Amino acid sequence: MTASHERSWVQEANLAGADFPLANLPLCVFGERAGAGDPRIGAGIGAAVLDLRAAGAAGLLGALDDATAEAMQAASLNPLFALGRPAWRAVRAGVAALLREGASGERQARSMLRPMDAVEFALPAAIGDYTDFFTSYNHAYNAGALFRPDSPVFPNFHSLPIAYHGRASSIVVSGTPVVRPKGQARRGAGSVETVFGPTRRLDFEMELGAFIGPGNPLGRSIAADRAEDHIAGLCLVNDWSARDVQAWETQPLGPFLGKNFATSISPWVVSLDALEPYRVARAPRRAGQPPLHDYLLGTAEGGPSTFEIRTEVQLSTARMREQGLAPVVLSRALFSRDGDWAFSQMVAHHTVNGCNLRPGDLIGSGTISGPDRGTEGCLLELTRGGAEPLALPGGETRAFLQDGDELTLTAYCERPGLPRIGFGRCTGTVLPALAE
Amino acid sequence: MTASHERSWVQEANLAGADFPLANLPLCVFGERAGAGDPRIGAGIGAAVLDLRAAGAAGLLGALDDATAEAMQAASLNPLFALGRPAWRAVRAGVAALLREGASGERQARSMLRPMDAVEFALPAAIGDYTDFFTSYNHAYNAGALFRPDSPVFPNFHSLPIAYHGRASSIVVSGTPVVRPKGQARRGAGSVETVFGPTRRLDFEMELGAFIGPGNPLGRSIAADRAEDHIAGLCLVNDWSARDVQAWETQPLGPFLGKNFATSISPWVVSLDALEPYRVARAPRRAGQPPLHDYLLGTAEGGPSTFEIRTEVQLSTARMREQGLAPVVLSRALFSRDGDWAFSQMVAHHTVNGCNLRPGDLIGSGTISGPDRGTEGCLLELTRGGAEPLALPGGETRAFLQDGDELTLTAYCERPGLPRIGFGRCTGTVLPALAE
Repeated sequence: MTASHERSWVQEANLAGADFPLANLPLCVFGERAGAGDPRIGAGIGAAVLDLRAAGAAGLLGALDDATAEAMQAASLNPLFALGRPAWRAVRAGVAALLREGASGERQARSMLRPMDAVEFALPAAIGDYTDFFTSYNHAYNAGALFRPDSPVFPNFHSLPIAYHGRASSIVVSGTPVVRPKGQARRGAGSVETVFGPTRRLDFEMELGAFIGPGNPLGRSIAADRAEDHIAGLCLVNDWSARDVQAWETQPLGPFLGKNFATSISPWVVSLDALEPYRVARAPRRAGQPPLHDYLLGTAEGGPSTFEIRTEVQLSTARMREQGLAPVVLSRALFSRDGDWAFSQMVAHHTVNGCNLRPGDLIGSGTISGPDRGTEGCLLELTRGGAEPLALPGGETRAFLQDGDELTLTAYCERPGLPRIGFGRCTGTVLPALAE
Repeated sequence: MTASHERSWVQEANLAGADFPLANLPLCVFGERAGAGDPRIGAGIGAAVLDLRAAGAAGLLGALDDATAEAMQAASLNPLFALGRPAWRAVRAGVAALLREGASGERQARSMLRPMDAVEFALPAAIGDYTDFFTSYNHAYNAGALFRPDSPVFPNFHSLPIAYHGRASSIVVSGTPVVRPKGQARRGAGSVETVFGPTRRLDFEMELGAFIGPGNPLGRSIAADRAEDHIAGLCLVNDWSARDVQAWETQPLGPFLGKNFATSISPWVVSLDALEPYRVARAPRRAGQPPLHDYLLGTAEGGPSTFEIRTEVQLSTARMREQGLAPVVLSRALFSRDGDWAFSQMVAHHTVNGCNLRPGDLIGSGTISGPDRGTEGCLLELTRGGAEPLALPGGETRAFLQDGDELTLTAYCERPGLPRIGFGRCTGTVLPALAE
């Protein structure tokens, strides 16, 4: 048994297929009471959360320097993110040592474990700025082809990771219901007359997110080679979208109300150290793409690498739940194949003009879509703009989301001989629009 | 003499043409030392700042409730903004009573006055989210005509106030130098080959900004009629722009690195109560524009009103300063004439989908451009995309900004029989791109 397959005294962590073995140890912020009261930092292990505030205060996390020990007492992960990789690694090593089979602190630590289903999760960090990228060629092609069949992908896609600023205030943690937004939309295709009301084309988008670590001061840049030192970890992101609102408002400045009513993220932050066994080369550049500017290339052979992360989207409708039907898988994709830009390149691009990133900022990958049927990361693509509704178990169909629909995003890394690393779940249920 | 022309014992406040008479009393955050050390809340009067932390602690601001008194001790205006208009009005009344000629607290308050040029200003609030609108028809027309001569203004402009999310982290207070950003741009017009380097088309944008007060919970909206209760005050905004970077990156998701390297704002927050004498009807809807949806109209006759605010942009180049030449006025516009959407409409639109606004959030008006030569709010328009450089005193010309150029934005309200209400200044000097 290799080091990465070490066993924990938390038995659920040793089960085949567990999201949270000893090799993962994602971080979160949780509270004992509803609404994440008295929030504190935790680590996921098996089906439990280890209270790292308590473990840190009891000196069970090994030799942490003062700043790191203090960061473990915070109500968010921002202070720890700000300290950088050496601190992240010290915490990770301390937690792993404490949870390893035979650890001397087991008896004390047992009292600091809470079942995941008995706690409330909060956002892992106070997110100062949220940036959403657009890095999957398949998504750009599929979505673009609906509006511009002759030239679906803009030429800039091949030279830089396209992005826009999202709304930080409306980022919510997994499990938060999403109220169907209202807005203006065209009365009909091509019309400049508008209707106002609840969106008729509510969609999800399957993305991964990266939390920023120390970041950079205004006016300086982060080199591609150093970018991973500024990524505290990855999470799941559902970029809910109102396609009719988005389509009408989007020229010339991009998405606004079609996106900013809600973005859901998973409570877990999976470290790049946990993902390291799954590091792979990025997919090769596509035929005809221009050479990259140096700032996006770095010094590594073949440019920045990425991670072999498998994504999955499930849908459960209200009627399916009434009928006792299991959720249906809508989509499966592969980040290393379907994301054309690595997170390190996104960080390098974001800062090349001197834009400052701060600890706890979030960047999203953009919708991750594969090349085949059933690998598309949103309904707009899966249903060809709503023209080809999906057939669901129980006889329903879906072009876009209906009230009561529950979306669940998951992701994981899995390969023979390596421990599975899971991202947990990012869920959200659609509530009807408000009458007000 | 009317109540609004009351005199202050701070004599500079009584001078004709003063930005900060007793009728204004804008709020700020300042510190005694460089870098705004030990920041506290202040109010502008004449050429001085009154330390409101000290005045509040000494009980000189009248009868404030506990929450308001506590908010005056904060290091930012966020807590006061969160309390809403009754608290803002109580503070304003307390400050006015203290600074009025004959006030009993004059002797004590004199020790709490600091010359404006002896303090360092900080951002007035921690800005959670920054949204930039696009509400001036002339700007939309002039900028659009450079790229789409046949259809400069997209049809959605007439139905809703267009906006995009800006970057909060890179908002800086007036006086902060701006480093010329680097980025990708087309090698030539229409080319899909790119060059990388310092921007060659650096521009400013003259805007007004609105700080958000209490705001709304996620999933709820703010009605147009109530929107002004959620606007804590207005400021100046310079939305620095790298036009070549922006032009290449902007499809399909809007501006990103072309904007997010810096946004400068004035230190002063001018309350709507100070602006009230200058309230006017919005310019009438343009011929052929569709009727507004109710949520943008409110119940007032003619829809939401606006304020008669005059804007001005001045430029001083390094060589002009060496030669002792005064700054030159590049542009003068009029917000009530040249802004097609009122701030209250922007707030109503921003929240109609349930997007939550938080205290201290900032929304920008977008570039304010008038209909005539010399009223355009950015160089892109003033120089017709750089094709018609401006002649400057001393023999220089400018298509776009050069290193060493200093921009100064100002705004004011002035009408016979009414006290002048000034916004102070928003300045920034362009520094060369970094070598790194």
